Amino acid sequence: MKAARLHNYNEYLHIDEVDEPKATGPLDVIVMIGASGLCRTDLHLKDGDFKEIHEAEGVELPYTLGHESAGWVHEVGSAVTNVEIGDAVVVHPLITCGLCRPCRAGDDMHCVEGVFPGLFVDGGHADFLKTHARSVIKLPEGVAPKDIAAHADAGLTAYHAVKKAADILYPGTRVVVIGAGGLGHIAVQCLKALTPAEVVVVDRLEPALELARDIGADHTVLADGNEVNSVTELTDGMGAEAVIDIVAEQGVEKVAPQMVRDAGTYYVVGYGGALDIPTQEIILREISIVGNLVGTYNDLAELMTLAGQGQVTLHTSEYPLDAINDAMVDLENGDLRGRGILIPEGASA
Amino acid sequence: MKAARLHNYNEYLHIDEVDEPKATGPLDVIVMIGASGLCRTDLHLKDGDFKEIHEAEGVELPYTLGHESAGWVHEVGSAVTNVEIGDAVVVHPLITCGLCRPCRAGDDMHCVEGVFPGLFVDGGHADFLKTHARSVIKLPEGVAPKDIAAHADAGLTAYHAVKKAADILYPGTRVVVIGAGGLGHIAVQCLKALTPAEVVVVDRLEPALELARDIGADHTVLADGNEVNSVTELTDGMGAEAVIDIVAEQGVEKVAPQMVRDAGTYYVVGYGGALDIPTQEIILREISIVGNLVGTYNDLAELMTLAGQGQVTLHTSEYPLDAINDAMVDLENGDLRGRGILIPEGASA
Amino acid sequence: MKAARLHNYNEYLHIDEVDEPKATGPLDVIVMIGASGLCRTDLHLKDGDFKEIHEAEGVELPYTLGHESAGWVHEVGSAVTNVEIGDAVVVHPLITCGLCRPCRAGDDMHCVEGVFPGLFVDGGHADFLKTHARSVIKLPEGVAPKDIAAHADAGLTAYHAVKKAADILYPGTRVVVIGAGGLGHIAVQCLKALTPAEVVVVDRLEPALELARDIGADHTVLADGNEVNSVTELTDGMGAEAVIDIVAEQGVEKVAPQMVRDAGTYYVVGYGGALDIPTQEIILREISIVGNLVGTYNDLAELMTLAGQGQVTLHTSEYPLDAINDAMVDLENGDLRGRGILIPEGASA
Amino acid sequence: MKAARLHNYNEYLHIDEVDEPKATGPLDVIVMIGASGLCRTDLHLKDGDFKEIHEAEGVELPYTLGHESAGWVHEVGSAVTNVEIGDAVVVHPLITCGLCRPCRAGDDMHCVEGVFPGLFVDGGHADFLKTHARSVIKLPEGVAPKDIAAHADAGLTAYHAVKKAADILYPGTRVVVIGAGGLGHIAVQCLKALTPAEVVVVDRLEPALELARDIGADHTVLADGNEVNSVTELTDGMGAEAVIDIVAEQGVEKVAPQMVRDAGTYYVVGYGGALDIPTQEIILREISIVGNLVGTYNDLAELMTLAGQGQVTLHTSEYPLDAINDAMVDLENGDLRGRGILIPEGASA
Repeated sequence: MKAARLHNYNEYLHIDEVDEPKATGPLDVIVMIGASGLCRTDLHLKDGDFKEIHEAEGVELPYTLGHESAGWVHEVGSAVTNVEIGDAVVVHPLITCGLCRPCRAGDDMHCVEGVFPGLFVDGGHADFLKTHARSVIKLPEGVAPKDIAAHADAGLTAYHAVKKAADILYPGTRVVVIGAGGLGHIAVQCLKALTPAEVVVVDRLEPALELARDIGADHTVLADGNEVNSVTELTDGMGAEAVIDIVAEQGVEKVAPQMVRDAGTYYVVGYGGALDIPTQEIILREISIVGNLVGTYNDLAELMTLAGQGQVTLHTSEYPLDAINDAMVDLENGDLRGRGILIPEGASA
Repeated sequence: MKAARLHNYNEYLHIDEVDEPKATGPLDVIVMIGASGLCRTDLHLKDGDFKEIHEAEGVELPYTLGHESAGWVHEVGSAVTNVEIGDAVVVHPLITCGLCRPCRAGDDMHCVEGVFPGLFVDGGHADFLKTHARSVIKLPEGVAPKDIAAHADAGLTAYHAVKKAADILYPGTRVVVIGAGGLGHIAVQCLKALTPAEVVVVDRLEPALELARDIGADHTVLADGNEVNSVTELTDGMGAEAVIDIVAEQGVEKVAPQMVRDAGTYYVVGYGGALDIPTQEIILREISIVGNLVGTYNDLAELMTLAGQGQVTLHTSEYPLDAINDAMVDLENGDLRGRGILIPEGASA
Repeated sequence: MKAARLHNYNEYLHIDEVDEPKATGPLDVIVMIGASGLCRTDLHLKDGDFKEIHEAEGVELPYTLGHESAGWVHEVGSAVTNVEIGDAVVVHPLITCGLCRPCRAGDDMHCVEGVFPGLFVDGGHADFLKTHARSVIKLPEGVAPKDIAAHADAGLTAYHAVKKAADILYPGTRVVVIGAGGLGHIAVQCLKALTPAEVVVVDRLEPALELARDIGADHTVLADGNEVNSVTELTDGMGAEAVIDIVAEQGVEKVAPQMVRDAGTYYVVGYGGALDIPTQEIILREISIVGNLVGTYNDLAELMTLAGQGQVTLHTSEYPLDAINDAMVDLENGDLRGRGILIPEGASA
Repeated sequence: MKAARLHNYNEYLHIDEVDEPKATGPLDVIVMIGASGLCRTDLHLKDGDFKEIHEAEGVELPYTLGHESAGWVHEVGSAVTNVEIGDAVVVHPLITCGLCRPCRAGDDMHCVEGVFPGLFVDGGHADFLKTHARSVIKLPEGVAPKDIAAHADAGLTAYHAVKKAADILYPGTRVVVIGAGGLGHIAVQCLKALTPAEVVVVDRLEPALELARDIGADHTVLADGNEVNSVTELTDGMGAEAVIDIVAEQGVEKVAPQMVRDAGTYYVVGYGGALDIPTQEIILREISIVGNLVGTYNDLAELMTLAGQGQVTLHTSEYPLDAINDAMVDLENGDLRGRGILIPEGASA
């Protein structure tokens, strides 16, 4: 089969002909890829940002990238009971053991044996992906793999943070979403579906704000250096009960906490920067800061329900899998509109 | 009456003869002080650390310090129904309106009209204190004002943080308390009363750790520069589900987050330092950081229950109110054992 | 002023000329009534259903009915700070003390000193109502008293139950509302605003189901004796995660629990019947049953937000206050469409 | 191997020589039984109370009873990674799939594919038991199978209910445990470990109350017909915030709700009776009723932690497995002190 593989750091991918994966373990599932989302993390992998951690974990190049996958079940291990060959599925990005204490609490991302295809073992930028019974979710009727592949990681991450924030969002509250790109526009839709809160979207780009308004944002604020004041004005001088920061780098993580109301919560989704908050401010304002890491299997299943109901839709640009390097270049240059989706030749028929 | 008043910043207090306060509003309550706790914040006030905020709020010197008070009801306004003259009471440090949205949710500390005696208006280092019906709690039988005065602020703050942490502390979890002084030794007792978690106490001083062991700490760790490793060893290499940081300054706030297990929570109680955590760490470890500001009226009532049951006891050193400056000097010099308690002459009879 | 008063049980009301109430306590608020909702409880009061409890509580006839009030602040006591004369307000049905432990937790309905005007003291079917600072909520701009008077009790009760249910309603879950009348049609709107759940409405009357569909119900089921099967079919044979029973009498309370999915919850809002469930069924299906009693002050404030946003609207029929007995007859005969609203002469100008 | 099997309803068990079970599936685990708890459900099974449900589920006699098992891992399937041969383990009573939505939320008891050995397939009253990787928990050091076998079902059920109740039990609250037998005495110990609430124990037998006091009950009440009044007196005339009913039959389920305070919760653990509560009472008192079904895997792991810490201990009477019918007769006649524990010959060496 074809697979887009990383041979050397700081070099674009090779489209290699490699052996198809086989279901060797009793709970293995082989998925024929229908669509595979291109993530900014793929660029980081290419650029060698994971070199150190790869070496620590014993990852050897080349291997296949891709951690946002959807497709159809192609082969199953002997003990798989939850899907059948031919089922359309989305693939949760982590392979979990189902036996450790976090798994037993539904906290998939903290599985003590978790394996992350596309980051540490062969992933989904290929014709086939080897995953596990605990990582596949059947798609609702009418939903095609290419419609929702990008939910497998990007959408899931946005949904997970929104679901945490929903706990404190009742009528009359406000929530700020910083960053109206790939994750942000899913977060806005999830907030509208799950909560009665007013949604304020902050972004540096006017077109992103326009999209935010189209999908339901109640207010938009241009990040022009005056964004804290603008949010303060939109929130009766108090700040927002919840701020969801999809960016959290390049100084955004310094201003975002100022948008949080006393007793409110700052949800960190993006990364790259560093918090720098006096403990006195944390105390006197009694604010909380909450990290968010991808999401659970059930989170992804719930997001699929929203997708099936038409409550959350993705904006995507499709590329043939063969053209993955073009997609990567477009993503690097800011020329990729919506989420980039790679379609293997066999799936596009 | 006598009152210990701040006349000038950077100068010890004056014991003045001033008019007794009167119940002028319908919900006013005048408390004859039985005991008044001395807090490190009193030193900060004396040292002028609140000068700027005093000026911003229009506070004029001289005024009476003291924000940890207990005593007996001396006079009540026309609409007071919850206490009667002669009742022994502890005084919640904040006067709240009972009408705003936070008050209506039981979130007293975020009252939009809150007034803080001892910080901004006359406080309890005096023979009498003017407070409000919504700030007084009757003491359980057998509990005297001097036994629990220090709970009014220090104990309440410790209890409030412990109650938040209790939500995530089930059998098999660990909680670290950093700082085994005034607040810390109450936190340890509250943790033992409210949770089945193993309690690990970290402090720079061996005698503080000895006290911690006496009151129920399961493990103690000397903060000798190797404390993160020690905590890691005590927690199977994982860190603790909850870390309650009573210090949060002088670099402690930099090492404390390293003691938190993935998916765990860092409760900030002390202040003075500043958080400096990469957003990537917050995300990848999916940790939370939670601020804590004093506590609610019901928190204080619950703490009084624990005091009445003998589950939480205070270590105190008593001084006559007249000797408040001696107590302040002792506190500054590290010569004050336990919490300093000031006793007006009339109450010591 | 004019007041509709109950002189004898089993007799319609008298429109009496009585003295206007005065603000005698420091937190009293006199509201000039803009609109007063007619509730089925008014019929029960007229019919003597409360005779025994009235005698036990020392209530003497005649007195003024009416416990769903909205209007404008007319006079305030000396200590009232949250409203000013002329403010448009809705009136929470209970007068609470603000001092007891339930009040301090925001649990208004369990105030140990609660007073219920219209049931035990003079209520709002009059030109003026005496209430309390803790019972008035300013209306959002653009909302008139007659638009939302019926929310003061009926809407609040529906909202309170929905808010509890919202905790377990995530994407993919289903909620059944039994009874699509006054409370039911508010519950449906609140569910659509607060949750992503599919809403199934059950009623005996086709026109009520039609209204339910108009305001957002995803499915409707005629209660024709086969309603449990119908709900089961609509929920993949499992039942619904939440069942909100606005009726809970005449046998409905016997079939409603059968619509609940294993591990689900049955919310009881209506009354009149009696539960009859084997403890074995409660255990083996691990279901919960949750009572609901009116709602909190903050609940009502949140509902006003939804009303101001146009997310919840009421269907009403207006009558002059003088014609209250006509309204009661219409309600008794099933001839009253929507919620009956009484308008004093002075308010209709 | 030897196995105690039910050949005919209404007939005591046969000690048969049967084939040892083998690990045929990849996640199968064969446990050499160290101890097997005798449960009242074993009597119900013998007495034919499950005949109908057995027929519906296609269960054919003879089969081996026993659903409270602990021992040592004897054989594992190819994909088992969480235990090794020789490990001492307790066995969660349900075999779960790990793939369905309830399993993925940690809600083991509602697994859609759950299998219950000892009720529907061969159980643990034998030398060996076939179970599954997801059902075994390694024992803490120093804990032997016979010390904790009865926790596998009885203890787990008590713990699960206590853990739910702990959410509403803060300092000053009261909890009533009705029934101080096998489950009850575990519930009392779990309550003392997990909560600061005062524990009131109600039972018909004075010796049971004496045991309750020994293990930490704060108050005991003889169920002599006046028990509701006694509980009311012990709770300031209000009732208890939580009532945990281990009996829930023979009329106990009629009086137990009267011990619940307004806004409190009634936890149903036992079964046999039927609730008969007017919906008006549920509403006006705003009480909740919560069913409890065994417990989760993590619940059992947490209970093992408490057992390892010595916070929960079991009172047991040991019988050789061969003497199971003697034990059953003793249980029927009320002659069995504590929980009956069956020890296979090989384990007693």
